[in-house]
Amino acid sequence: MHRYKNISAPVIKRLPRYYRFLGELHDKGVIRISSRELSVKMGLTASQIRQDLNCFGGFGQQGYGYPVESLYNEIAHILGLDHTYSAILIGAGNLGKAVAMHMSFEKRGFRLIGIFDNDSKKIGTEIRGIMVSDLDSLEHFCSQNKTDAAIFCVPKNAVHDIADRLYRAGVKNYWNFSHYDLSVHYDDIIVENVHLNDSLMILCYKISDANDFPDNTSA
Amino acid sequence: MHRYKNISAPVIKRLPRYYRFLGELHDKGVIRISSRELSVKMGLTASQIRQDLNCFGGFGQQGYGYPVESLYNEIAHILGLDHTYSAILIGAGNLGKAVAMHMSFEKRGFRLIGIFDNDSKKIGTEIRGIMVSDLDSLEHFCSQNKTDAAIFCVPKNAVHDIADRLYRAGVKNYWNFSHYDLSVHYDDIIVENVHLNDSLMILCYKISDANDFPDNTSA
Repeated sequence: MHRYKNISAPVIKRLPRYYRFLGELHDKGVIRISSRELSVKMGLTASQIRQDLNCFGGFGQQGYGYPVESLYNEIAHILGLDHTYSAILIGAGNLGKAVAMHMSFEKRGFRLIGIFDNDSKKIGTEIRGIMVSDLDSLEHFCSQNKTDAAIFCVPKNAVHDIADRLYRAGVKNYWNFSHYDLSVHYDDIIVENVHLNDSLMILCYKISDANDFPDNTSA
Repeated sequence: MHRYKNISAPVIKRLPRYYRFLGELHDKGVIRISSRELSVKMGLTASQIRQDLNCFGGFGQQGYGYPVESLYNEIAHILGLDHTYSAILIGAGNLGKAVAMHMSFEKRGFRLIGIFDNDSKKIGTEIRGIMVSDLDSLEHFCSQNKTDAAIFCVPKNAVHDIADRLYRAGVKNYWNFSHYDLSVHYDDIIVENVHLNDSLMILCYKISDANDFPDNTSA
């Protein structure tokens, strides 16, 4: 299967949702679905859905709807889920542990192959069957194990040094939970940020904006 | 201070980053900063920054730059961080625990006032000084304690029922970590989603797109 070029960022952002919804339909044995039915399920307009899925061409015939399984597989391919990238987790604290335990890496194109921390109390413990290694062994590990991506679950002030070390070790793809803007410091890396504090502030904005309080007292 | 209307979603999404950067500058004792300096720090264009900050008007004089502290405070106000919304956490598993331990709620306009789970092994334990309560007591708690928002850290299949209960109890603002699209089911709620699996798939897409493998073998 070929890959698609020039898919807009907003469409890319919606792809995982399409993938999830189509996966559920596929599990339920649904063979075909119309853009109208899909729009009701996803809370998007039917024309938006047709527009999005037209980017990949060849799907959906007037009056016949979309073939669930092949569209599901094609979106998986577009997302790259038919690859298996090896990833290491940096930081075995509460957040890192939750990410390691919670994520279904294998279904998202990744395999977790290592966990690192500098806390002697954590080093040697096991998370999801993976032993937590000393952060000092990072370079050695990367030299011995093909490492495609790193997951940052460390405090902001620790990211810069570790990112430098990983960058020099050739690891340039990052899933970044730390509030450190990596892309500002390197221009040839791939970063997907999960800034939880930013997300919480956006929720705060949405609530405040909806209530539009005249002063700074809570509702 | 008044609130601003018609700020576009992309600008809103950037506000937390402005807030973080300006906070750092303020902590360093920086009084004023030009859009050019800020653009270098944030990896945005100077004109983008001028455009964004012009939405709030009255900031930045030609040649004088932006007053860090007042802009920082104004963005905090726009984000609603001068409110204190009470929030409860649903789900005391790995992710819920990490969210409770990891987040600086107080700095983001929230106060965590309750944690709920249906697991007898978790009920009665303490997380961040808050005792985990039985999920059965949810309605009673909400009737006794003003509850502005709920944080969902429960499996997808558990969200629907709990959301219904919270909705009936008058809690309509959600920070949703579950892969359940709440906004599809209720039209008068406020939801900020953190879909970690979607984010991981986007990283997978970015890596695959950058490498553009001709077949489905990894690099």
